[in-house]
Amino acid sequence: MSMTDITALVADDFKRVDAFIHSGVHSHVPLVLDVAKHVVEAGGKRLRPLMCLLAAKACAPGQQLPSSAVELSAIVEMLHTATLVHDDVVDDSGLRRGVPTANVKWDNPTAVLVGDFLIARSFDMLVNIGSLPLLKLFSLATCGIAEGEVLQLQCQHNPHITEQTYFEMIHAKTSLLFEVACESAALVVNPSYQSALREFAEAFGNAFQMVDDVLDYVGDATALGKNIGDDLMEGKPTLPLIAAMQLLGTADKAFVARCITSGDSSQLEKMVALVRQSGALDYCLAKIDAESQRAVHALAVLPDSQYKQALLELVAIAAKRIG
Amino acid sequence: MSMTDITALVADDFKRVDAFIHSGVHSHVPLVLDVAKHVVEAGGKRLRPLMCLLAAKACAPGQQLPSSAVELSAIVEMLHTATLVHDDVVDDSGLRRGVPTANVKWDNPTAVLVGDFLIARSFDMLVNIGSLPLLKLFSLATCGIAEGEVLQLQCQHNPHITEQTYFEMIHAKTSLLFEVACESAALVVNPSYQSALREFAEAFGNAFQMVDDVLDYVGDATALGKNIGDDLMEGKPTLPLIAAMQLLGTADKAFVARCITSGDSSQLEKMVALVRQSGALDYCLAKIDAESQRAVHALAVLPDSQYKQALLELVAIAAKRIG
Repeated sequence: MSMTDITALVADDFKRVDAFIHSGVHSHVPLVLDVAKHVVEAGGKRLRPLMCLLAAKACAPGQQLPSSAVELSAIVEMLHTATLVHDDVVDDSGLRRGVPTANVKWDNPTAVLVGDFLIARSFDMLVNIGSLPLLKLFSLATCGIAEGEVLQLQCQHNPHITEQTYFEMIHAKTSLLFEVACESAALVVNPSYQSALREFAEAFGNAFQMVDDVLDYVGDATALGKNIGDDLMEGKPTLPLIAAMQLLGTADKAFVARCITSGDSSQLEKMVALVRQSGALDYCLAKIDAESQRAVHALAVLPDSQYKQALLELVAIAAKRIG
Repeated sequence: MSMTDITALVADDFKRVDAFIHSGVHSHVPLVLDVAKHVVEAGGKRLRPLMCLLAAKACAPGQQLPSSAVELSAIVEMLHTATLVHDDVVDDSGLRRGVPTANVKWDNPTAVLVGDFLIARSFDMLVNIGSLPLLKLFSLATCGIAEGEVLQLQCQHNPHITEQTYFEMIHAKTSLLFEVACESAALVVNPSYQSALREFAEAFGNAFQMVDDVLDYVGDATALGKNIGDDLMEGKPTLPLIAAMQLLGTADKAFVARCITSGDSSQLEKMVALVRQSGALDYCLAKIDAESQRAVHALAVLPDSQYKQALLELVAIAAKRIG
């Protein structure tokens, strides 16, 4: 199954998701509406609502999708967008997928407040669905995402971050919202699959983020330099660096540690070469493979269907991004 | 009744509120905990939880206060603190009540993310109370607060703001959270008083904010210059200025409009003198009086009690701040 085949499975539902997002960002304050529309339209791949819809269908393949599943997909995407808007303020980013960020197209104050509006609106739409277990899922995840982002700030320029802390950070940054997308779908369709879908999403999220971090070291030189350079200057140690710190000899390790501490990206080529030589990337690939397999195994309890197959394909497609 | 008498009425409950706030800001991420503790402790007057406790007791004077009322008081204060943390980022403020703001003691990224954590945590604690009508009250108010803040940004440096827009802004900035504090208390104790307490809080909130805005023009010269100067430089037209724009002659009106548009506070003395001469402050005082009376009348349906009396005293104390 290609990505096109996968999205075709839920094309009609996706239209309803988009309509619901558009109704969700409505505001009588014109600036709120303008900014909110800009950021949800610049959103990109819509991977989280796709997962939510597929998960809902995979929980009850023959049945009609309840409207709450469509609403949940939209809410997950709005919450994701809200976190991106604040992330761009935090990282002082100017572009996201080639589109100017809210903090640049408007300014930081506007981006902070419209991000707040999107968080509040997501909760308001969730309250309308009227399920306390759903609300608990989202409120806990939203706390965790914010805590994880602060943890990441606190770990900036620290070359001695452990693998455990790295996994805590990527769980908050990526896997938590994957979990909410899949678990909430199970909750409204068939709660007996809730823990299976949580484990699937957690493992998939971890693999997905590790692939992202490894891609920085195997992509073409230009993109590669830019991404690692950005992460380095922000002092964010990712798994390839953390693994290299374990695998390298004393002198090289000290060199990598200095690069992380100082945020100096002037010796990027040497650092990339060291990471590649160290065997860190193979170490990461093994971790990605293990998490991908964990995701696949988690879905074994679900009935076979094209939707379950599509979820499994998403995992395979993510892993295949590394050439 | 003095402020001391009023707080004495709910002193024991207040200790429970503080304990609940402290448990609420707990996080396994040390930086989240540090920043959250700093901002809730720097919070100040605790007016909103006080109103919430008094409103709850006034709804059923003889009865034991339900623990949900204590929890609500804490949640209202945490949500208020979250909005202040983001406001300080938006306004680039360095001090609040003489204490360094989070954006200065730490930095903007930390303040944005810990503000997000406090919003999420407030909702999470609210979900634990388990009432959908309560959640709806809070989620709608949180949307409205963010929208009002954006409206305020959009109105910056616009000298032609109408009185209606001013009231829309102060409603979002102040009255909405007063309403949540009082209305939520009624909801958990005696829902038949909900609309009375909402009207009380709305009118009280409007009067309270107008008093704040008038005080800038009647306080001593130093404080006065500073506050009006700050508002002017941020281009925030308050009711005294809006009223003066209606009452002044063509030339003076053009001068005030230029000050608002440019944010130039170099001719502050002349502007203050013009506002005072124009009769704008009397106009504001009449509006404050009308809203104070509306607040008092709204409580007429509640049974007489020292708690109801205390709520009425809060309105009188606020009005008396103008010498």
